[in-house]
Amino acid sequence: MTARFDVLAIGNAIVDVIASTTDAFLAAEGIPKGSMRLVSAAEAETLYAKMGPGREVSGGSAANSCAGIAALGGRAAFIGRVSDDQLGRVFVHDIRAAGVDFRTPPTRGGPPTGQCLILVSPDGQRTMSTYLGSCQEVDEADVDEERVRAAAVTYVEGYLWDPPAPIRACTKALAIARSAGRWTALSLSDVFCVEGHRQDFLALIPRAIDLVFANENEAKALFRTDDVHTAVEGLAALAPVAVVTRSEKGAIVAARGVREAVPAYPAARVLDTTGAGDLFAAGFLVGFTRGRPLKECAVMGTIAAAEIIEHYGARPEADLKARVAAVLGEEMLADRP
Amino acid sequence: MTARFDVLAIGNAIVDVIASTTDAFLAAEGIPKGSMRLVSAAEAETLYAKMGPGREVSGGSAANSCAGIAALGGRAAFIGRVSDDQLGRVFVHDIRAAGVDFRTPPTRGGPPTGQCLILVSPDGQRTMSTYLGSCQEVDEADVDEERVRAAAVTYVEGYLWDPPAPIRACTKALAIARSAGRWTALSLSDVFCVEGHRQDFLALIPRAIDLVFANENEAKALFRTDDVHTAVEGLAALAPVAVVTRSEKGAIVAARGVREAVPAYPAARVLDTTGAGDLFAAGFLVGFTRGRPLKECAVMGTIAAAEIIEHYGARPEADLKARVAAVLGEEMLADRP
Repeated sequence: MTARFDVLAIGNAIVDVIASTTDAFLAAEGIPKGSMRLVSAAEAETLYAKMGPGREVSGGSAANSCAGIAALGGRAAFIGRVSDDQLGRVFVHDIRAAGVDFRTPPTRGGPPTGQCLILVSPDGQRTMSTYLGSCQEVDEADVDEERVRAAAVTYVEGYLWDPPAPIRACTKALAIARSAGRWTALSLSDVFCVEGHRQDFLALIPRAIDLVFANENEAKALFRTDDVHTAVEGLAALAPVAVVTRSEKGAIVAARGVREAVPAYPAARVLDTTGAGDLFAAGFLVGFTRGRPLKECAVMGTIAAAEIIEHYGARPEADLKARVAAVLGEEMLADRP
Repeated sequence: MTARFDVLAIGNAIVDVIASTTDAFLAAEGIPKGSMRLVSAAEAETLYAKMGPGREVSGGSAANSCAGIAALGGRAAFIGRVSDDQLGRVFVHDIRAAGVDFRTPPTRGGPPTGQCLILVSPDGQRTMSTYLGSCQEVDEADVDEERVRAAAVTYVEGYLWDPPAPIRACTKALAIARSAGRWTALSLSDVFCVEGHRQDFLALIPRAIDLVFANENEAKALFRTDDVHTAVEGLAALAPVAVVTRSEKGAIVAARGVREAVPAYPAARVLDTTGAGDLFAAGFLVGFTRGRPLKECAVMGTIAAAEIIEHYGARPEADLKARVAAVLGEEMLADRP
């Protein structure tokens, strides 16, 4: 059956609140620069009160990837829970306006829509404090079997591995995809995710995942090694395709008989690195679902990642298709027959 | 008495929703490019559903000016009404985080916080559809006499001239400022404001206003002329200080015996012109309250305006003080003894 969607993703439905910061502010607050941490509603409120003026932009790791896939001409669907509030409506508007198929109904009367307070340092590094709110309420019932079967790739984010309901949703979706002969993909999301759920991920990947996305630190944390190549080989032993991103050092793709390293694509400027990994995955998956060689998929990932770090916010703003076509040719984006 | 605030402003408390657009979209929607119009909640919802992905940033004309004044080291206070909702909390956070003294309590149970849907064309021009919501509920009771008396300049925006409550608030504030021997200022805000309230403004300015800010089109509309110099002379006959901004042609300042034209300050790029007039007023008023010559005040206005058009959103992001100091010297920003 031809896939109706290139990628169906499950993830946290989050609105980002982005503000500039200084290293001194992070130090005073005791927040490690570059980290991602979960915070309570009260902690989020306290931090927000101290932050500078913000801009609100839809975010969420897998949701950002979906927006990137759509910007590249791919067909993406997203599953995630917002609340029936103003920020929830912002999230729903933005993801649909980006061209992503999104149908999960909002939660009524529960916690508010999830928010990620993102402090961006002068060097472009982002430090994230996430209040999950309604994100945690996505569950099995939100996973529609027909839609999963209709997607070439089912993609889940590691950030979902915390409360039981989102894990149930992912488990159901991955099982359906597997039984339908579709591809499955996982992002390790963050070092804190890996450290908190290391055994889960080490068990999940060989059982249920075809493509693993990790950045260098996440891959190292999973295998408790300081050597990136050891980590790459570890992932490659667990999954058919392993992709490790390395910021300015580019990315490594490992698959049976394949070891490809690609350089980072040059960004015009580095303003805010939020979403670089999400957009790398978007570019990679569009190439992958179009049957391109793995190295080209990775190059496409680096082009999409370069765009996102040139501006604030983790959803693409420039014409991603034109950028990819300029480097790899128009045919790179042609849909499969 | 030394002024505790350089500027106390009354204005619409609005959160902007900014999205990129095309001329074709504006034409299809029948919205004149570059226009500002008021819309109902239902119209705003319909347009929002058709718009591309947005970013939410605090706005409001006089509120933007206050943020600019604070960014330049001035002491600004703002009066305006948000609702007790998520976007209202965003507005309150952002204006306080910008360093502006803001104390107006939110409305509870009324219409939601005002929103301005801003469609930005590829050439940077912005087309605005504003749903006023709770903005219209600012009233006399929100104007604290002691705070007005403590401000060197009381500044009101023409956008407030529609429902009776905000007009009452402005009238009260201007009268207090006048009786306290303070300066008063008015922005004509928009051509639709001028056309709708032409007689009101022509009566108000000579009676109550010391400084008038207008862009070229607003000034022309007020005097029903096609000639900018006729419009400048018309304003100069009504108010002690008249300032007319002319986009890329710079600005003209007219006062007793003074006619100064200053060029536009070069922007690194023109991405989104929203807020250029608001930031011009901010720069001008900071110079004015520091007792600088009118021409220098205007130059300071052009520097602040240039910063705002280089990025999306109408609140300053770069270090405005450093930009002004680089052109006009550190002493330009020194507080008065």
